[in-house]
Amino acid sequence: MCASSLTLARIVERLKTVCAGETRGNADLPIHQVASLQSARPGEIAFLSNPKYRKYLRDTRASAVILHPGMASALPLSPSGEPLLAAILTANPYVYYARVAALLNPAVRQAAGAHPSAVVESTVPSSCHIGPGVWIGADVSLGENVEIRAHACIGAGVVIGADSVIHPGVSIYPGCRVGARAILHSGAVIGADGFGFAPDFDGEGGEWVKIPQIGRVVIGDDVEIGANTSIDRGALEDTVIGDGVKLDNQIQIAHNCVIGEHTVIAGCVGIAGSARIGHHCAIGGAAMILGHLEIAPHTEISPGSMVMKSIPQGGEKYTALYPLERHADWLRNAAQLRSLETLAQRVKTLEQQIRQMEAGKS
Amino acid sequence: MCASSLTLARIVERLKTVCAGETRGNADLPIHQVASLQSARPGEIAFLSNPKYRKYLRDTRASAVILHPGMASALPLSPSGEPLLAAILTANPYVYYARVAALLNPAVRQAAGAHPSAVVESTVPSSCHIGPGVWIGADVSLGENVEIRAHACIGAGVVIGADSVIHPGVSIYPGCRVGARAILHSGAVIGADGFGFAPDFDGEGGEWVKIPQIGRVVIGDDVEIGANTSIDRGALEDTVIGDGVKLDNQIQIAHNCVIGEHTVIAGCVGIAGSARIGHHCAIGGAAMILGHLEIAPHTEISPGSMVMKSIPQGGEKYTALYPLERHADWLRNAAQLRSLETLAQRVKTLEQQIRQMEAGKS
Amino acid sequence: MCASSLTLARIVERLKTVCAGETRGNADLPIHQVASLQSARPGEIAFLSNPKYRKYLRDTRASAVILHPGMASALPLSPSGEPLLAAILTANPYVYYARVAALLNPAVRQAAGAHPSAVVESTVPSSCHIGPGVWIGADVSLGENVEIRAHACIGAGVVIGADSVIHPGVSIYPGCRVGARAILHSGAVIGADGFGFAPDFDGEGGEWVKIPQIGRVVIGDDVEIGANTSIDRGALEDTVIGDGVKLDNQIQIAHNCVIGEHTVIAGCVGIAGSARIGHHCAIGGAAMILGHLEIAPHTEISPGSMVMKSIPQGGEKYTALYPLERHADWLRNAAQLRSLETLAQRVKTLEQQIRQMEAGKS
Repeated sequence: MCASSLTLARIVERLKTVCAGETRGNADLPIHQVASLQSARPGEIAFLSNPKYRKYLRDTRASAVILHPGMASALPLSPSGEPLLAAILTANPYVYYARVAALLNPAVRQAAGAHPSAVVESTVPSSCHIGPGVWIGADVSLGENVEIRAHACIGAGVVIGADSVIHPGVSIYPGCRVGARAILHSGAVIGADGFGFAPDFDGEGGEWVKIPQIGRVVIGDDVEIGANTSIDRGALEDTVIGDGVKLDNQIQIAHNCVIGEHTVIAGCVGIAGSARIGHHCAIGGAAMILGHLEIAPHTEISPGSMVMKSIPQGGEKYTALYPLERHADWLRNAAQLRSLETLAQRVKTLEQQIRQMEAGKS
Repeated sequence: MCASSLTLARIVERLKTVCAGETRGNADLPIHQVASLQSARPGEIAFLSNPKYRKYLRDTRASAVILHPGMASALPLSPSGEPLLAAILTANPYVYYARVAALLNPAVRQAAGAHPSAVVESTVPSSCHIGPGVWIGADVSLGENVEIRAHACIGAGVVIGADSVIHPGVSIYPGCRVGARAILHSGAVIGADGFGFAPDFDGEGGEWVKIPQIGRVVIGDDVEIGANTSIDRGALEDTVIGDGVKLDNQIQIAHNCVIGEHTVIAGCVGIAGSARIGHHCAIGGAAMILGHLEIAPHTEISPGSMVMKSIPQGGEKYTALYPLERHADWLRNAAQLRSLETLAQRVKTLEQQIRQMEAGKS
Repeated sequence: MCASSLTLARIVERLKTVCAGETRGNADLPIHQVASLQSARPGEIAFLSNPKYRKYLRDTRASAVILHPGMASALPLSPSGEPLLAAILTANPYVYYARVAALLNPAVRQAAGAHPSAVVESTVPSSCHIGPGVWIGADVSLGENVEIRAHACIGAGVVIGADSVIHPGVSIYPGCRVGARAILHSGAVIGADGFGFAPDFDGEGGEWVKIPQIGRVVIGDDVEIGANTSIDRGALEDTVIGDGVKLDNQIQIAHNCVIGEHTVIAGCVGIAGSARIGHHCAIGGAAMILGHLEIAPHTEISPGSMVMKSIPQGGEKYTALYPLERHADWLRNAAQLRSLETLAQRVKTLEQQIRQMEAGKS
């Protein structure tokens, strides 16, 4: 992952159409990499977003820093008043940093063409990369510049939009759709059967009868899906992942879920069947959402929290967690949980007794 | 996934050996797909299992509905008393629906024969499908009509029963056994080493000594295993998955577990080593079961619950969950948990004081 | 998995350099396998570590047992005082058992050489095994005797130390490093992009801007990584897994984490970004550790516990779990949790009232 080198002035020029920035100090400084304020070396650019880190400005070895115009006065000066640190002033330093990082570290693209070891049963654009050992079934439709890397399996009838990257070992089941500019990481499984069985038991005999899963997975544009994440196909309707959704690793999304646009879901989350998550939600790692619930847009769920009921009103944060304790303390406190209702009842009784005693006195 | 078309009468005829049904209304209506009452279009058949959805019968656009004979009176009639909706009456509408769905959406079978890119080091029946890039090691035994789809890896000495389907990218380690009619979804890993190490540390030095995992995984008939689920091989004895067990995605089953027949386990569940789960249990998503526990048959575990002790008596539901709250409420309530034992002690002291005061009065 | 056969005397001789043992009884007994005291058959050797299992010594069918010298008096004798059970006396019977098990069940090594179906774009030592369908990118460096089993994908520039085994279907992203004697199980994904996005939203529009993940994953020596476990590459710095770390299945380790030497992590654990776990920690299954926390060396975390704050002092066990209850009991007790702060307040009020009443009396 080698990085190219650009001057501050050139960086501002290159990014001006997506986010505005203004240089301070020596705009001709060559920058070849991003770094944090604390670990940066000369030739690297850092960013300051949280004011509590402004103390690191004085001692950073970075050649430049990205920060908000309101923080420009915190830039260190020499005794003679010369600026010691070049800067780019911008309204959203973290986003600007992300864009500079992408400029200096452009994604490595694989060469167009199909590796001779690939098995390709469809016609694909010549701009696509089809890696070693890839299998592409019949009636698959790929957009321009799609990369299907080593050993990925693309089932019959799958559609993938332009510029998407499918990493090694991804498996997409027949009939599913992936939008443009998607990134699917290794081990992701898209479109396996949802978990649907009807119980046909009586007395001792019987079996679970499998319900065919005839929906698809339909994934919007600009979606990233992490390693070993699985998204099941719908039972009847489709499972739908909205535009701009970002899914981390080891996530399970069950059949018929609908995930709204630009929602982010951290690792190890499980979402049960037919849940509907609004747009712009943030679901913390290892949270769980039960089936058939509706979560309003802009809801935040704390990590590790089990969501057992719908959240009709958005814009708030919800939590369901037992707080961490030393094990010895936990043993004592958790034991009381099993008689918490009794404890509440005893307090109520005490309150009545006190009231009676007070009444008796008067 | 195109569906064939059958008349109601033909459906009842085809299913009569597995479940009895009786038509009402026009038995010659052609049906080509299943759907829900609310989303069905003409030519589709829906089902009514839960009486609370009977209100949807009047407005459904379905051509027919599957329901219990006791609900037949709820079928809508025209003003002149003619039935407006054809029906199949049956004792278990949900199971009947599952079987109709399977009839109309037969599983897509891959053609028999081995793809030239497959590496097959064993003799396999000519009725089997061996997909592109598949690797089958030495001494593997496959039943008739087994499908090993693209890129699956079947280790030496593995045995797989007739009519099983192994989806792309599944990995089965040497020596493991899978029964007949199994479905293993992409990313499933069967038979990796169990997590067994002996601590050999003294003072600063030392290491974890790996304990060879010499058991197998032995999977019964009619088992379905979800995407990215892993089942470890036994340390000494085998890890055993009973007949008819259904495992969802992202499940971890550790070494030496025994899962009883027809137990269903939802996504993201973890079961630690040597746990024994009875038959016909239902384990909710993201539940966890500690090692060496025994769970009685017909036990239900709520989603997200940590099972820390054996459950000797079956037929009940168990739960271990902190309930969801707005984060601000949680902060206040959870803080009190850390002094719950003290609170209980204070209530006890109050009760003693009240008793003494009452005694003092008399 | 056939086992060789060795006499007790030969076992002690073979292991004497790594752990000392001394035979009791017939040292010429041939031993071909390890087993538990309860399930052992003749020709097998068991071990006794926990004194509470000494009762099984009398009835075991094992030919020999490994135990501590202090337990030698518990070995059964015939009525005439002859030892009925041969033994190996050693300071740490469990570790000795692990080493005997490894002696009798040596790991099956694959033959050196590259399978013709493998795509190898680097020069690799002739002592390495490169299995069917493997893809190895450019500039990869493998140590001697490395095994890359069927269908594993090794990205450009990866370095893997001597004697490591990469199981079928593992994916290692470009630039990552794995030490010597590693074992990576099927479905493990090493070096996928960390989950890093900067929010660029205003009003209705906007998007998450991907932050390039330019760090690597650097894995030490003697590390084992379980099936379907994922370890993300660092954002700027590397994600680091120390020597001797053992990771079970289905684990998620996010970008920039540092896991100290010899720490063991059980299945289904999630560790969020930039967390630092000390050496010799033990993290129970399905535990979660939030981002940017520091966990001191030798800390133990109970299974299923969410760690929400740093643990600065090691050597203790921490827990965060709601205890399991019958669902009906849970409904009553958990409901009270939502008003626990109010309950605490009511108790405080009662205490004040009592104090006033007592004061009023005197």
